This record gives sequence, C-alpha cells and structure tokens, in this order.
Amino acid sequence: MAITVVGSVAFDTVETPAGRRERCLAGAATYFSLSASFFTDVRVIAVVGEDFSASEQAVFDAHKIDTTGIQHAPGKTFFWQGSYLDNLNEAKTLQTDLNVFAGFEPRIPDAYRDSQFLFLANIDPVLQRRVREATPQAKLVAGDTMNYWIKDHKPALLEVLKGLDILLINDTEARMLAGNNNLVLAARAVMEMGPRMLVVKHGEYGATLFHKAIPGAPESHTFKSPAFPLEQVTDPTGAGDSFAGGFFGYLASQRELTPGAFRRAMFYGSVMGSFTVECFGTERLQQLTREEIDHRFKLFRELTHLD
Amino acid sequence: MAITVVGSVAFDTVETPAGRRERCLAGAATYFSLSASFFTDVRVIAVVGEDFSASEQAVFDAHKIDTTGIQHAPGKTFFWQGSYLDNLNEAKTLQTDLNVFAGFEPRIPDAYRDSQFLFLANIDPVLQRRVREATPQAKLVAGDTMNYWIKDHKPALLEVLKGLDILLINDTEARMLAGNNNLVLAARAVMEMGPRMLVVKHGEYGATLFHKAIPGAPESHTFKSPAFPLEQVTDPTGAGDSFAGGFFGYLASQRELTPGAFRRAMFYGSVMGSFTVECFGTERLQQLTREEIDHRFKLFRELTHLD
Repeated sequence: MAITVVGSVAFDTVETPAGRRERCLAGAATYFSLSASFFTDVRVIAVVGEDFSASEQAVFDAHKIDTTGIQHAPGKTFFWQGSYLDNLNEAKTLQTDLNVFAGFEPRIPDAYRDSQFLFLANIDPVLQRRVREATPQAKLVAGDTMNYWIKDHKPALLEVLKGLDILLINDTEARMLAGNNNLVLAARAVMEMGPRMLVVKHGEYGATLFHKAIPGAPESHTFKSPAFPLEQVTDPTGAGDSFAGGFFGYLASQRELTPGAFRRAMFYGSVMGSFTVECFGTERLQQLTREEIDHRFKLFRELTHLD
Repeated sequence: MAITVVGSVAFDTVETPAGRRERCLAGAATYFSLSASFFTDVRVIAVVGEDFSASEQAVFDAHKIDTTGIQHAPGKTFFWQGSYLDNLNEAKTLQTDLNVFAGFEPRIPDAYRDSQFLFLANIDPVLQRRVREATPQAKLVAGDTMNYWIKDHKPALLEVLKGLDILLINDTEARMLAGNNNLVLAARAVMEMGPRMLVVKHGEYGATLFHKAIPGAPESHTFKSPAFPLEQVTDPTGAGDSFAGGFFGYLASQRELTPGAFRRAMFYGSVMGSFTVECFGTERLQQLTREEIDHRFKLFRELTHLD
C-alpha cells in the first residue's frame, strides 16, 4: 500500500569527524522516502526551490517515488548546516535558511487521495494537522516531531498527537514531552496524548516500541530493536527519518498489521538507520539494494536472538 | 561449578529520588555473590570489620555462599555514601571510608583451590593480579574495573587484563580504556589487551557482548541483551555487579560453554541487574527466587525476539 509523506526536502552541509560535505540532498521527507521506497510506493508532499535540479529529481525517480506533490517555488530550497565535530550524537546547528519552506502550504494531489498510510515528518504541527485532516482515508498515521515544537508549540503539537496512531521520537523528546525521566512512565504518558504506539529511538542503543494494544496482544507491551554495531559512523544526519521510513515502509508492505509485523518493522527501521549513517547525507540510501537490507536484517536477528 | 569471587563487602548509604537508606549491606562482592548464588556455588574473598554482624552473615548463609575467605579485621567495614539525586545514571560519591579495606590482603582458603571460575570484582588491580596468580586452576576468569584504575593505574590494570578471559565494564570505561569513542573499535582494542571477550554494560540500554572467537563461532561476533523496562528505578547501585553475578553464575552452571550459553548468560545478567535496581542495596536480591528470575528471563526473550 502506498505511503504519503509530508516533510522537508533540503540541502545540508555537514561536518563530522569523518569529513565535510557541501549541500547534500537531505531533509526528513527525502530520507524517509528513499528508505521507505525499498518496501512500498511512496508519495511526497514538500516544497523545493529553483536550486533543486534534474540530478536531485533523478534520485527520487530512480526509487520510483511519486513527486507530484513536490511544489517548485521561486527562491532557494531549505538549507541546513550542522556540525558533529564535538559530539557525534548531537548536531550543532550552524545555519538554518528556511527559504521556500517558510511559506510552505502543503497541497495533496488528487492521485495521493487513496494513500492508506500517512507519515507526518518533523515540520510545524500546524501543517502536520492540516495534512492529517485532509487525508481522512489514511488508516495508519505516524509522525515525528522535535524538541523545538515540544517546547514552544505544545498546544498545536498536542492536537496533532490526537490524530496519530504512532509517534516516533527520541529519548530526550519523549522525556520532555511527558515531563517524566523514566522512559516507561514517559511512554505511557505520551500514549495518553493520542498515539496508541510510541517508538523511542535511542541512537546507538537501538529503539523501543511501546504499545497500548495491538490485535492479538491484549496487554500493554514493549519490543526492543538493537542498533547495528558500526565501526564508522560517517554522518548521523537522517538516521531517525531513515528508521521511520524502514519501519513504516515495511508496515505498509504487509497485508496484515500483526504484532509480528510491528516487530519486524522495528528491525527494518534499525537496519535502514544503520545504513544511512555509513555515508554522508542520503548517499548510502541512494546506492542501497534490497539484498543488502535483508542481509543486515538477518544479522540483526543474530545479534539479539538466543537460538 | 563453583565460582570464587574477590572484591568488596561494604555498607552503603544512598540517596536517590526514591528515598534514602543508611548502611545497606552492599559492595561488589556482595552483589556478585548473591546474584551468582541463584545459579551455582559461590565462595567469597573479602574483608569486613567489627560492624559486620550476624545479621549480615545470615544473608550470605541464606544463599549458601561460602564465606570462609571473608577475613574479619579490627575496625570498620568499607563504607560508601553516594547520591543519585541529580542523575540516576551516575552516582555522586559523597564519602568513601576504606576502613579495613585499606589493608586488605586477599587470602585464598584451601577449600577454594578447586574453583574453576574466578571473578575479580572492581578492586586495586595489584590485588586482582595477586589473586589471579594464586588460582592457576581457574579455567574461566572474568573481571571488572573502573575509571579510577584505568586513569591512574593503567600499567597494573594492563597486567590484569592479560590474565582475563572476559572483562565486564561500562561504555565510558571501554571508551576510556581503548582511547576510542567508537564502541566497536574500542571493543576490538580492549580485546587486544588480553580478554577474548568484552561485555560492555549500557545501563538502561542493556549490554553488548563482543568476542573474538568462541567454539562453534569462528568469526568475531556480537550479541546484545536489552535492559528490562522498569517503571521505577529505586537504587542503581550494584546493577553492574549483579549483572556480572548472573552472567558468570549462569556460565558456571553450564556443562559446556557454547555460544548459546554465552547468549543466555547475557540475558541472565540483564535479568539480575534489573531486579537489583528495584530496591535499595541488596534488598531485592535477598528476597528473590529462581522462579522470578526465570519468569523475567522469558519476558526478556519476548522483548527482543521476532517470533
């Protein structure tokens, strides 16, 4: 089943201990789409500027991603510059130019109307909500957010949470959103805000799925996926969005959303995140094959399973 | 098979967000022994003072722990006071009174001479080495250390590492010991120092076993155990020592040290650590049953296994 994703397409300039790259093709919607495209059809809603050229379009085309919903506006594409030189686990933002993103008004193409899976990547919750309301047919809705919206736009964010089935955020965001340092209690509090499932991403320590109730598993439950042990993390940018793309893309590819499907989706999410950080920007995702994905999925199983 | 453990028996006064306890029975050798006692016979080498009373002795006796090797010296038992009020993941030391521990000269009772499993808990590496050299019959030797010894007593510690099969330390210690922030590379560097296996404990994120080669698994390999999601962490003290006790105790109970035995040992380690932090000091270990342990082991499997 097709996924519609709304979010940012951007150019990133990043410096990490491994080096520096200028204007990588990036942005949450880009990472998400490329990652999910290995599992299912993906349709993007975003905005780009005049500097978005045929070579960037070709990346989406090569992955059969529907870009009808990408608006082309006068001006420049969203630009972000960050550094991981001090801390590989947290970017220091050096520059953010919203550019065409400042006036972004998401429009949903008619051809997207039958998408039953909707992903609201990390953007202004006001826009997330508008897209959610305009896609009543979506049967599974997931989303992301960040500390900025939690801190300064909480009322708007809480409205979005009411319309989400699954929220995907990191440890710090979950604790901040719930106002509780214990992750189990924080997860429970967040699920009271709307989502029936919460995926908490722990960076190099993997991710945890908390859920209230899913078919076949009556009790509140938890599932953990490890992170792949990597000898070199080249650029951590986009790991979370790639996780979301693998997680949600795999779910959208399944005929039935069984408890087992959610568990495997967690592993596929971790797999996709682990590939992304191996190279700068979306370079690794651009070159990836489904065979590599399934091979690493097998290694993830070996990393965690007793038998 | 019996385990001999050398380390500290102590009284701890701790304050955590959950409350405060005065003079809990604690110390690395205590946590380790109690934890391992659920799996195998345990023999302790330590020193206590005149304040170590019949009620403390009764705790060891109730778990059939051999305390022939606990020396009784004039003076007071090792005392530590710490606070987790600012950070539940790291204790702030408020007071350390070595007391009788300052002159500790480990002596190995003859009755311990056939122990094939030896655990060197976190003490001065000079003492660890002396005990190691005095127990040539040990066929599997594991040990712990801490930042203090890594930073200021590295030459002595490196001598200890040469005699270890397995080192169990936390993330920060592994990175510090190897001088490398990447955990995979750090693990490899540590294993070059002697131990053929390294268990890195990640606190609330579980633990990772790195190993060079074990029978039946020719390649360098990795295994991850989650941490149990707890709604309340009452007192984190002793989690690592309890992990070590469960891990090593389970191994000592096995007829063959297969790759599967090491994987299950990792889970039992996590299980034991998760119980310890539920109450102050060794309170939870004192009350624990093997049935509770095996029940939680099953839950650990469910937390991580796809099927």
